[in-house]
Amino acid sequence: MASVNPPRGMRDFLPAEKARRERVLAVIRDRYRAHGFDEIETPVMEEYSRLHAGIGGDNEKLAYNVLKRGLDADAIRAAADDPAALTDLGLRYDLTVPLARFYASHRAELPAVFRAIQVAPVWRAERPQKGRYRQFMQADIDIMGDASPRAEAELIVATLDAVDALGLEGATVRINDRRVLDWMLDSFGFTPEERPSVLITIDKLDKIGPDGVIRELGERGATPHAVDEFYGFLHRPPLLEYDPYGERPIRSVLPEGAPDDVVSDLVAIGDAVSAARAGDLRIPLAFDPFLVRGMGYYTGTIFELAHPSVDYSLGGGGRYDGMIGRFLGQDVPAVGFSIGFERLVDLIGQSDENHERAVVLVHDRDVPLEELLALKAELTREGLRVRLDQRTKNLKALLERAAADGYTSFATVAGGTARGDLQIKQLA
Amino acid sequence: MASVNPPRGMRDFLPAEKARRERVLAVIRDRYRAHGFDEIETPVMEEYSRLHAGIGGDNEKLAYNVLKRGLDADAIRAAADDPAALTDLGLRYDLTVPLARFYASHRAELPAVFRAIQVAPVWRAERPQKGRYRQFMQADIDIMGDASPRAEAELIVATLDAVDALGLEGATVRINDRRVLDWMLDSFGFTPEERPSVLITIDKLDKIGPDGVIRELGERGATPHAVDEFYGFLHRPPLLEYDPYGERPIRSVLPEGAPDDVVSDLVAIGDAVSAARAGDLRIPLAFDPFLVRGMGYYTGTIFELAHPSVDYSLGGGGRYDGMIGRFLGQDVPAVGFSIGFERLVDLIGQSDENHERAVVLVHDRDVPLEELLALKAELTREGLRVRLDQRTKNLKALLERAAADGYTSFATVAGGTARGDLQIKQLA
Repeated sequence: MASVNPPRGMRDFLPAEKARRERVLAVIRDRYRAHGFDEIETPVMEEYSRLHAGIGGDNEKLAYNVLKRGLDADAIRAAADDPAALTDLGLRYDLTVPLARFYASHRAELPAVFRAIQVAPVWRAERPQKGRYRQFMQADIDIMGDASPRAEAELIVATLDAVDALGLEGATVRINDRRVLDWMLDSFGFTPEERPSVLITIDKLDKIGPDGVIRELGERGATPHAVDEFYGFLHRPPLLEYDPYGERPIRSVLPEGAPDDVVSDLVAIGDAVSAARAGDLRIPLAFDPFLVRGMGYYTGTIFELAHPSVDYSLGGGGRYDGMIGRFLGQDVPAVGFSIGFERLVDLIGQSDENHERAVVLVHDRDVPLEELLALKAELTREGLRVRLDQRTKNLKALLERAAADGYTSFATVAGGTARGDLQIKQLA
Repeated sequence: MASVNPPRGMRDFLPAEKARRERVLAVIRDRYRAHGFDEIETPVMEEYSRLHAGIGGDNEKLAYNVLKRGLDADAIRAAADDPAALTDLGLRYDLTVPLARFYASHRAELPAVFRAIQVAPVWRAERPQKGRYRQFMQADIDIMGDASPRAEAELIVATLDAVDALGLEGATVRINDRRVLDWMLDSFGFTPEERPSVLITIDKLDKIGPDGVIRELGERGATPHAVDEFYGFLHRPPLLEYDPYGERPIRSVLPEGAPDDVVSDLVAIGDAVSAARAGDLRIPLAFDPFLVRGMGYYTGTIFELAHPSVDYSLGGGGRYDGMIGRFLGQDVPAVGFSIGFERLVDLIGQSDENHERAVVLVHDRDVPLEELLALKAELTREGLRVRLDQRTKNLKALLERAAADGYTSFATVAGGTARGDLQIKQLA
């Protein structure tokens, strides 16, 4: 007999946890809508070829693939050396590939600058481990059709607003630009060919520290004089917080000669986010010249949502101007910010304020059913949430259970009790 | 290159339609919560063996199965004559099988009488046709642990309340009991062996009419004298609406000798639903002795949500006291009512009342980004929904588009415009 547990790495949500998750999602959706974003939905499945076109990076290997319907023995045997022939669909592993497909399909029906919300599950067949699930929620916002830094500024301000509304204090958005990274590595003397492998090493900076990075670059055989140049730079203070009352000398943390257009975009984004958060003592935005982000499709700005209490990111994103073109045959600028909902919801803990008026009607066994249902109907019409519980010997346990389930009051019902007789009492 | 359309039989939802669907779902969830039900969530995938244990009826054949990860050529070849060996998981085709699994897994953490809400998508690889989708939403409520008609009455009242709250007038719940059907077929003289096939024919009554049913029973070789008996009964008026001001002679539409316990449960449910809807001119509940419902797992009451404007049902359910026992090894009474969300949402049409305060800021190209973001932030803090649109030559078209997207007002922004200067005007 099959297990009664959910499949490995996946979770059931009981009422209290489900309600808490929905409350958090409602806050995120509400703030994103306030900032002019619109929610869309795509099917959980996409065509296999779409999911395995090289855009999804390492996630492509983790995709759940769906068996073709109606395969016969010959077709299966013929697929022995080509398992992809067994499948035509897969479950999405992110919300970016489906969004690009959606946009290419519906562009004519969408505004010129389209601000999308997607709050939906994705699936990855990862090795299960603490805090990592095979089905998990992502909350993404993306702006398509705006090549200007206005898009980045809107994404960052909306994300910070959602984080604030959830009561998470002390979060910071780190920002960098792939073009800064590329230029920097060029200027140190790394070759274009070794750039991807050098970036993979730099991405580990938070985990292995500056000396670890230098050691690994040496072991990988990176150009020695470039590693030396990089060494000197790596020991400067890397994070530059935007300071609303002072200067924002982004150039001061970069090697000399950084490209003007990229630096001025980063300054403009910082100024705009600072202006939107006028009055804050601390602008929760920091320039981090070592921020890499794993995905290969980023073409410009990249960002990450960080919090001092955890050493992993709570979300991230960036500009991917090239991707839509692969679907549409015509380039469309695009930039997105994805919140890692599962990590966030764990971090904000039990912000469990339940303001519902909810009453348990504890009724004797012999109360006629029609009296019970009439009473319940009257109370729901008054705007209450109502549960019927037949009285048990241990009334105290029954009421404790009701309180744990979120009920705030109770009343006892005997035969003949009318609405006017009902004594509604607060639950402890 | 893969198509940019969603996979066959599945749909993308653009902002207006997504918002409408979410509003309808919010109403359903709200009413179900008011009636004391609690939402839960299970993963979209279940173990293959769980989905193919014979509980799902015909839907099992329509399941999407997920390819095992890491299959090698030998494993694939070995599966040629046993395709089930290629798969370990599948997408759920209903919400009842996962609920039974969930309940068996978490029973100790749930109240003695557990009232569950599930509002979630299911997947079936059906031949695509108008109004039938391969991914679609179901909205189910179920009560586990209550063998009394209180459960049926609560389900029906909650469902009717949700339907009312959606503004759908004229809906009716039809009710019957599998035990009535079984007894009736026995009393006509059908044998227990031919019962399933006779029920399949009776289920077509709405489509092929009484004469069609009698003809098909004959063609199927059903016991001739039983068909004759049935013929006389079939031409009586079949539906009996519960009448709040008169008698409710359920026996009057049944052959003589119907079992007392079943009839008295049906009467109790009718009385309770009538009491909950006291004041209604018409009680939207009707006894239908020919109602069958397809699923094999029903053991008692069965019901269907009908509407005069359509000849298909908008939802249905029934009592399935045997199912949990197959998971738990111990019987638990259970009864559920499922709304066919896609059919309902099509039927209620554009009840598109948008009461949001939403403003489009039409800005000149040269307004500094920090001014734009500061203005936007101020307005979102005031509780408005705000979209930035750069002015285009055709302002009229821009504003029409904004109105179509749900925005209710607009203001133009030039360089140096402060909150106090902003003239917010209604959109036509």
